[in-house]
Formats: sequence, structure tokens, C-alpha cells
Amino acid sequence: MRAAVWYKANDIRVEEREVKEVLANDVKVRVAWTGICGSDLHEYHEGPVLIPGNGPDPLTNQEAPLTLGHEFSGIVEEVGSDVTRFKAGDRVVINPLITYGTKSSEYDIYDGFTFVGLGSDGGFADFAVVSEKNVYALPKGLSLEEGALVEPMAVTVQAVKEGGLQAGQTVAVFGAGPIGLLTIIAAKAQGANKIVVFDLSEERLEKALAVGATHMFNSGKVNPLEVGKEIEPEGFDVSFEVAGVEITLNQAIKITKTRGTVVIVSIFPKPVSFSPMDLTASGIKITSTLAYEPAVFQKTIDMMDSGEINPKEIITSRIELEELVEKGFDALTNDKTQAKILVKLSGEQ
Amino acid sequence: MRAAVWYKANDIRVEEREVKEVLANDVKVRVAWTGICGSDLHEYHEGPVLIPGNGPDPLTNQEAPLTLGHEFSGIVEEVGSDVTRFKAGDRVVINPLITYGTKSSEYDIYDGFTFVGLGSDGGFADFAVVSEKNVYALPKGLSLEEGALVEPMAVTVQAVKEGGLQAGQTVAVFGAGPIGLLTIIAAKAQGANKIVVFDLSEERLEKALAVGATHMFNSGKVNPLEVGKEIEPEGFDVSFEVAGVEITLNQAIKITKTRGTVVIVSIFPKPVSFSPMDLTASGIKITSTLAYEPAVFQKTIDMMDSGEINPKEIITSRIELEELVEKGFDALTNDKTQAKILVKLSGEQ
Repeated sequence: MRAAVWYKANDIRVEEREVKEVLANDVKVRVAWTGICGSDLHEYHEGPVLIPGNGPDPLTNQEAPLTLGHEFSGIVEEVGSDVTRFKAGDRVVINPLITYGTKSSEYDIYDGFTFVGLGSDGGFADFAVVSEKNVYALPKGLSLEEGALVEPMAVTVQAVKEGGLQAGQTVAVFGAGPIGLLTIIAAKAQGANKIVVFDLSEERLEKALAVGATHMFNSGKVNPLEVGKEIEPEGFDVSFEVAGVEITLNQAIKITKTRGTVVIVSIFPKPVSFSPMDLTASGIKITSTLAYEPAVFQKTIDMMDSGEINPKEIITSRIELEELVEKGFDALTNDKTQAKILVKLSGEQ
Repeated sequence: MRAAVWYKANDIRVEEREVKEVLANDVKVRVAWTGICGSDLHEYHEGPVLIPGNGPDPLTNQEAPLTLGHEFSGIVEEVGSDVTRFKAGDRVVINPLITYGTKSSEYDIYDGFTFVGLGSDGGFADFAVVSEKNVYALPKGLSLEEGALVEPMAVTVQAVKEGGLQAGQTVAVFGAGPIGLLTIIAAKAQGANKIVVFDLSEERLEKALAVGATHMFNSGKVNPLEVGKEIEPEGFDVSFEVAGVEITLNQAIKITKTRGTVVIVSIFPKPVSFSPMDLTASGIKITSTLAYEPAVFQKTIDMMDSGEINPKEIITSRIELEELVEKGFDALTNDKTQAKILVKLSGEQ
């Protein structure tokens, strides 16, 4: 089968690979669509980050070279002898989070996790073999293309949960990349009253309005704190930092109201400077999010199925597997009008 | 009357001053004992910090020079015509927090506050005239000396509340100065199972054990993260940063367990560096505390009265008003065996 294999930074090869053996608890999936995530991009440019580059991952026992891709959907091709919940032909979506599974789910996601497609072979391939517990049923009402959006959407449903957002509250979002856009969608579903978004790209800001932001500002042209104060003089209830840089983290803190919450959604590659006094003088809390509890992943599917959330609008292009580097990674790096790029494998819907 | 008046940094004068006029809602208190706070020390060395040094304070309409001292108790000397809850002879303690009082107490303490003794004349004087709402009855079972400890004790009762500490949980405290010691006492009252304290001074660490810490370590000699891991391999439920420096804040984050809480109790004078990834990878939250809700101030009195908390042990010396600079501020600056120094005014008990 075809597979996009990470060898080292700037060396991802689409090549022929054997399909892994299907063990008793495994499900073999014919992949339909796989999204490109920001962390795939990090692996491409600066990896290994999460990929096991120096010896096998303790959870998966796999190491590079391995097949990337952790946002994917497909159709069950074959199941292992002990698999009970799925059969060939089922439409499914993959929850790629791999954990030890020995703690309650709230704690388990922080307990030495990795992901299918980072710590083991993933979905940029014609087939993927994953454990049954990583497989979720895709409801009839959702296309396989939408299935490939469940994973990033779940990240932001969890982020909104971590922020303790309540209906009627106000929200500021720093960064309108794919996760920023999905955060807007998740916040809107939670009943946010105002959703103000800041970014440097006009195209991304337009997209943000399209998916539910009520106000958008180019932070290269206006001071977010000044325009924020005009909209909400007392500050915003919950702010989401989705840009991953020092200045936006500090703006997120300063734009938040007394006793409000800042949620760090970004992965910050290095330390940043902030003033603890900004917290002390305001009672603002800082929290964060990383992955998603299994119940949140399922809830995300349910919310998409009911139409409560619709992330489809963040798709900006669909490409072939052979185009992954040029029209995928390079496009996302150089063209800020790109949000979510899906890679077509079988392309079934 | 005598009063210790702040003129400018390094210029505090004990001199004769007129007692302020007693207005309708005012209570005139003959001061018994007044504690020296870390923020008094900041005003002495680097002020004005909270003292209105450039024009009058918007809440009190007062400006420097003014009388310091915000941790004090005394006996009511006289009451204004509209005062209903107190009469001459009553033993009282002062809640020095001055706010607009227009929001619920949880939010009000962040709404443009100041303090008696920083934004208006305070308790390093023979008499203080304060609004009735700043006056709390001192129960018979508590001495006036203990009354002078209510205010700093309330800071830490609020800190423990902000940390969401539950009985049976484990606690790490960074810094065993007066507020660090009181944090230990407040955490113990809340039922903390283990209380580990870190400081550079052996004398302070001994004091920490005496007031209820279960483990103490000199962070100049051992690595707090290593010894912390031996005691609690999964980390501590709640960590309190009471040292006010970058390294201890980062240690407090790293010593906390998955989904735990770091409470910033210190006032940080400037920005510090930290790794947001330390939060992202652990689900740890950062919160903070500054003052105390009125209900927490009253609860602190009640807990001291019932014997549930006993902060008396943190008193390391008692001095005369005329000795405030030399045996007070200078001693606290140069002698790390000092914790809480009380200034004797009337000295009544």
C-alpha cells in the first residue's frame, strides 16, 4: 500500500509499505480522508517532536521511520478475532490517543500518552491497523470527510470544557488558524455571547467570521487590548491562546476579566515571559488543554451528527497523498489562507 | 499622638500627628498592637508601591505623607454618630481592605482596592480612625496581640480557598517567611495530609515544622523536585508560591501533580519566565490570591477563636514604635530568623 513515511525532519517519503498484521484486538481500516495537523507540520520541519526518534516509544514499541497522520476516517476492512463492536464495511473515525489506560480518563490523557500517526503508524496510508478501543462509529449523517475533522474538533471541545465556559459568557480567541477556528465553533456551541478573534491574516479573520466569530480584528493593525475594552470594558470571561507566542499569551491574560480564565490551547515550544502580578491583581486563572477525554471525543461526534457544530467550513483544500509535502506541508507553511487541508486516500464519502 | 509616617523611600519618621476627625460612620481605635507586613517593607525600601505618592488615592482621597500599618487591633475609644455595631471599650481588629463595595465580595476585592495604612492613615500610631465597616469584633478568647495577626492569617486562609485544597490532599509550600508559615497553618486547618516546605534558611524551616509542616528541606542544599518526588512520586495536589522569585514559581509548577493547582501568593515585582508546556503536558492550573473576602476575614477570626488555627508562634519579636525602622524594617531585611514582628502601641491585651 501507499504510505507517507517520516524518516527525519524535511524527509517524508510517499512509498510502498506492507500493511501491519491484524492482531486479535485490532481493526484494519481502509482510510478515506486524513487531515494535516499543525503537529504534523512541526514533525516535518523540526521533528522528531512526538515521534520516537531515539528508540521505541514505550507505549507502542514503534520508532521512526513511521507513517504520519492522526486525523482520519475510513471503512473497516477486516477485524481481529476478539473485536466485537465493529465488522467489515462499518464507517469509522479514529481517536488516535494512546494511553496506558490505567487511570480515570481525566488523568489518563496526561499519563504518558502518544498518538496513532505519531507514536505508531497512522492514516496517511491506504490502510491503518489500530486497536479496537481507538475506533469510533461514524453516524450515517456524517460524511467520511467530516469524520476526518472529529479529532481537531475534539481538541477544542475539550478546550472549552477546560475553560469552564458558560452560555452567555464572552470569549476572546487569539489566533485564527485551524484550531482557532474550531475553538470559535466550540465556543459558539457552548452558547458564548460574544466571540472576538484576533489574527494577523485578513483571510483567516474572514473565515473566523464565517464560522461564528462576532467580532474580528487584525492585531497587526489595532491593539487587541484597546478594541477589546471597547467591546467588553470589564474584559472577557474566557480567553483562548491559540497562536503560541509570548505576546498573545500576555494579551490573552490582560484582556480577561476579573476572576476569568485563560486557556492555553497552543503548544509553546519554549519558555515565555509573563507577569504573575497580572494574575494577582485580577484573580484570573491560567489553564490549558492538550488532548481529549474519550467521552469528549464521542460527544464531539454526537454534536457534529446533530448539526450543533459544523467544522466543514474550515476545509480549504483536498489533495492527493503524493502531493502531501508540496500541496500540504509547504502550502500550510507559506500560504496563510490555508486552514485545514485534507488528504484523499480512498476518497469515499 | 505618635505616628510612624511614610514620607518617601527610606524616610519613615516617628513624629507627633493630630488624630483625624471622627465622622458619622467612623470608629476611633486606641491601637494596641500592629504587625509589620512585607508590603510595609517594600514601601520602606522601594516605595511608593501602593502608597499614593503622586496625587490622592481615588478611594481614600489621601496621599503621602501618611501613617503606615495595616495589621492591627485595639480598643474602641470613640464612635461616630451613625455607628451602631461598636461602642467605646470594645476590643476590635481592623480589616484594612478598602474597596468601592459595589460588586459581590468575590469580585469587589479586585475592584480598585487599597488598604488602611497604605492608602490612608494606619495603625503604626496611638490612634487610628477608620470606617465602621473596616472594624470587626475581637472575641474574648483572643488577645489583642493575636488580633494583630488576623490580617496576614486571612491572606492565607483565602489562598487555601483559591487553591481548592481538600482534606487529605498534599501540599508544597515554597518560602517559609511569615506568609509561608501562615499558609502552612491554613493548609493544616484545611486537613492537608502532607505539607512539605522549602526555604533557604534553617531557622525558618525549623519554624515551619513547629507550625505544622510535615517535611522541610533547604532548597539551597537539595533539589526540591528530587526530594518532592521521593515523598510524592505523582506530585503534590496544591503548591503555594510564597517566595516571589522565578525559580520557585517554576519549581512549584513542576512539583504539582497532574490536574493540580499552583497558587501564587507572592507579589512578583517584575515579569518571570515559565514554560506553558509545563501546564499543557500536565493539566496543572495557575491561580493566585491577593486579599481576602470579608467572609473569609470573619472566618479567620472564628477559626482563631476556636483554636483551629493558632498563628501566635510566628511572632519573633515585639518592639516599640520608636524602634520601627531599626528593630523592625532593618531587622526583617537583615535577619532571616525574624518572621512576624509586632509593634507595641498601647500594648493592652
